[in-house]
Formats: sequence, C-alpha cells, structure tokens
Amino acid sequence: MEYFVLTIDYVGVLVFAISGALAGMRSKFDIFGVFIMALVTATGGGTLRDLLLGSTPVNWMLHPLYVYLVIGGVAVTYLFRTQVVKLRRSHFLFDTIGIALYTVAGVQKALAYELSPLVAVMLGVVSATFGGVIRDVLAGEPPLIFRKEIYASACLAGGVVFLLVTALVGEKAGTVTAIIVVFLIRYFAIKYKWSLSVSA
Amino acid sequence: MEYFVLTIDYVGVLVFAISGALAGMRSKFDIFGVFIMALVTATGGGTLRDLLLGSTPVNWMLHPLYVYLVIGGVAVTYLFRTQVVKLRRSHFLFDTIGIALYTVAGVQKALAYELSPLVAVMLGVVSATFGGVIRDVLAGEPPLIFRKEIYASACLAGGVVFLLVTALVGEKAGTVTAIIVVFLIRYFAIKYKWSLSVSA
Amino acid sequence: MEYFVLTIDYVGVLVFAISGALAGMRSKFDIFGVFIMALVTATGGGTLRDLLLGSTPVNWMLHPLYVYLVIGGVAVTYLFRTQVVKLRRSHFLFDTIGIALYTVAGVQKALAYELSPLVAVMLGVVSATFGGVIRDVLAGEPPLIFRKEIYASACLAGGVVFLLVTALVGEKAGTVTAIIVVFLIRYFAIKYKWSLSVSA
Repeated sequence: MEYFVLTIDYVGVLVFAISGALAGMRSKFDIFGVFIMALVTATGGGTLRDLLLGSTPVNWMLHPLYVYLVIGGVAVTYLFRTQVVKLRRSHFLFDTIGIALYTVAGVQKALAYELSPLVAVMLGVVSATFGGVIRDVLAGEPPLIFRKEIYASACLAGGVVFLLVTALVGEKAGTVTAIIVVFLIRYFAIKYKWSLSVSA
Repeated sequence: MEYFVLTIDYVGVLVFAISGALAGMRSKFDIFGVFIMALVTATGGGTLRDLLLGSTPVNWMLHPLYVYLVIGGVAVTYLFRTQVVKLRRSHFLFDTIGIALYTVAGVQKALAYELSPLVAVMLGVVSATFGGVIRDVLAGEPPLIFRKEIYASACLAGGVVFLLVTALVGEKAGTVTAIIVVFLIRYFAIKYKWSLSVSA
Repeated sequence: MEYFVLTIDYVGVLVFAISGALAGMRSKFDIFGVFIMALVTATGGGTLRDLLLGSTPVNWMLHPLYVYLVIGGVAVTYLFRTQVVKLRRSHFLFDTIGIALYTVAGVQKALAYELSPLVAVMLGVVSATFGGVIRDVLAGEPPLIFRKEIYASACLAGGVVFLLVTALVGEKAGTVTAIIVVFLIRYFAIKYKWSLSVSA
C-alpha cells in the first residue's frame, strides 16, 4: 500500500508538472518560465497546505526527488509535445488518481495537526487544487477549477468519504474508496457534462 | 468589550464573504469557485498576517466557526443576491467597522511578536486589505484598493491612531478611536470624492 | 566584505522598490498601491524564501530599515520619475548586482537549513526573481522573467557558481565570482539578444 501510494504520488507530480509545462508553453514563456509553471502546478497545492499548517521547510524542499520529477516532466513536454497534448485530451486516469491522493494526503496531514474534520477536508481540497489555481494566475487566466468540470467538488466528496470510511473501516479502505469516488464523479461529470454553475 | 469585538469580527467575516461571493458570481465561477472567493476575501488578509508572523496553523483553521460564517455568507448571497447588491451599494457600515477591527487585530498581533510600531501598522493594513487583493487577483482584476477610494489609507490612519491612543489612554479607547477614525475618513472620502491618485 | 554586502543589499532593495513603484504608476494605482507594489517587488522574493523555509517573522519585518528604503524608493520615483525611467533604460548595474546577491543570500540561507544543493540553488533563484513575479501578477501582466532576457537563468548560473567556488575556495570568492557571472551573462544576453524561448 505504502509503495502504491508513493508511486501514484510521484506519477501525480509528473502529470501535474506536464500540465503546468503545457500552460507555460501556451503562454510563450521561455524555458525558465515553463519550468516554474511546472514546479508550481506540481507542488503549489502541497506547498500552500504546508505553509498554512506551519510544516516547514515545505515538503518538496526536503525531497529533491520532486524537483527531478518536475525536470523530467518539462523534458517530456518539450520532446513529445504533440503526443502529450493528445494523451492529455483522451485520458485523465493519472490526473484523477493524483488529485484523489493529494486530497487524502491533505486531510491526513491536517488531522495530524489536530484540526477539525471540516477544516481537514478543506485543506485536502486546497492541496489537490491550488497548484492549478496558481498555474492559472501566473498564466493570466481565470482559475480553471473555479469554472469547469466539477474537479474540486470531486475532491470534496473524496475527502468526506475518506473521513467516513477511515472512521468506520480503516485508512487503507478510506484511501481506496476516496480514489474510486473521485474517479467516478469526474468520469460521470465529463460523460454527462455535469456543471455546478449557478450564476445568472 | 470582548463580546462586542468578537461580534464585529464575525460580522466582518460575513460581510467580506458576501463581497467575495459576489465577485465570484460576477466572474461566472461555479459554486466551488464562489465559495473559495468568499473564503479568501474573508480570511486572506488574516492568513497572510499569520504566515508572515509564523503563527501557524493560521487562525481560521483553528476556529471552524469562520468556515461556517463563510458558508452562511455564500448561502445568503445566492438566495438574496438582488437585495445584497442593493444593500452593498447604500451601506458600508459593517465593512468599515470590519476593516478597522482587522487593522487593530493585526497591529496587536504584530506587537505581541515584539515587532516595531512601523511594521505593526503595516501588518494591520495588510490584515485589513489583502483579502480583497487576493480576491481581485483570482478574479483577474487589478486590485481595487490600489486604485479606488482611500480604503487602505483609512486603515493606515486607524492603525497609527490605535497605537497612539493605546499608548496614551488604553487599548479599549484605542480600538474605539481607531474605528471612529477609519469610519470618518471613509465617510468623507466618499462624500467629497477624495482620491490619492498622483500618477499622470 | 560584510559592509560591502550590506550596502549592496540596501541598494538592491532601493532599486527593486523603484522598479515596483514605476510598475504601480504605469498601472495608475494610487499612492498606497504604488507603495505596496514597491514593497512586494523589493521584499517579495525574500519573503517567499523565508515562508518556504519557515524563517518567521520574515526578514523585512525584523528590520524596519527595509521599510524606510522602500518609502525612500517611492519618494524618489514620484519626485524624479522622468530621470529614473531614463536611468533604468541605460543602466542595470545595481539591479544585476542586486539579483546576484539575492541569489547568494537565498542559497546560503537554504544551506543553513541543511537543504540539498539543488534545492538551495532553486531557493536562491526564487529569492532573486519572485519579487518581480508578484509585482507583475498584481499589475495584471504576465511575469516578465518568464519571457524576457535570461534574467532567471543568470541567477541559476550564479547560484551554481557560488556553490562550486565556495566549496573549492571559500565564501567570499564564491560571492564575488557569482556576481561577476550574473553580470556577464546579463551583459552579453542584452548585447547579443540571447533568448531561451523554445515554444513554437
């Protein structure tokens, strides 16, 4: 389980780094800008989580492997841009598992700081989504997750389910159930074009 | 007094949450985006204050009541949007008392960390205004307080007055005087269209 | 050497404050907005560095002199705007020495927290460049350093050279060499219009 979680965590960082690198290339940034976009997209949510909790130096600075994964994601994006864009459009498997695990990790870390379940779930959602928010702000675009799909809502549901199943059954079951819930919500959201826009 | 300050604090959070929710609805965000906009507007200034001081986990995470107030503010905005917009245009009483108290709270917390009066006043202004700055950046607009009214200058004056009156008379007198000063400056600023724009 | 470094540090803050004030005036902000722009440009990179490390209260709050330098930079910009703009276009000496020293200071502080050399160099680059990134985001512009010149790349090279020369010779030699490297890269980059843009 530990091994599985770590592997998915690393894959998640790679996938988010690629998403950030693509956004940087669309904005015609130079290679430094593209790298920073990849870094903040991959680590921004977890960094904000750690800053809000006071867990410093923040996580990615303690584990240079994250930086190497970001460098790898940038290299892959430059070398195989066309294929990467195609892949991104047809698949969202890793991305979805990634945000589910980021959510679970955020909830767990908040509980370790003895925060309330409500705040823990919010921190989980922040961990999973704010990398993308910072990416969009730096690219000068309105944050995607505030408008499209029900990305964040899936994380919210995943965080709540994780808490409930962990309390009733155990942490492993909670993690797996949360991943399944996030995956199913995003799958059906895209298939049936769900949206939560209420604004007139 | 304590009770009065706490009540105003909660009302301030509610008012700022409504202001953020309205901005999110204007930007056509979905309900998650609207909620995040309400949250950052209501808690962003205090969060930045706590991060700069190193007071973590940041304040709102330790008091879930703030989160419930933000949820309440979002609900009110969705249910009574037309009335809320009208109210917002004709009144600014709570908002003004709110920023005055945020300023005082920021100054007090900085002094508790043994920072200089100059830095304490600046942190007070940051506490009162940066929720709105983050709200505007996320909405893709230039920060309102950098251009309109003399919102921040009122906080600055309030912070200085709070320091002086607290030193000469006492903290309660300082708090009340600061609120009155912030209120009067904003009132006359709007009545006589004061502006501090110097740029050609 | 200490005296030299401190002097340059203060000159760097002044130069960055002027750059931020100019950006605020271009965006037609009022005097408060111009001051905040000057403050975040001059102290934003170091503030982010301190937050990521957990070194709080952040550096500028402990040393009010930085605030006075920012106030001075704003005053100079209002009083001598035309001359300042001309100076800015023809010279970049202080700015370049400034970012070199910010880079070195960031690397040193990260090493003091026992972080890896890779992460230390990245933190150095962040210290030197993110003041400008926050300035541009607040002004509603895409971050300049993600697109123009090879500003950040010069810092990156400077950080690596500092690490190497410090390990082989000593810290003073490392600092001086890093400044020379950053200066030469920026000089030749501008002279021969180097660019790192790879995006199609």
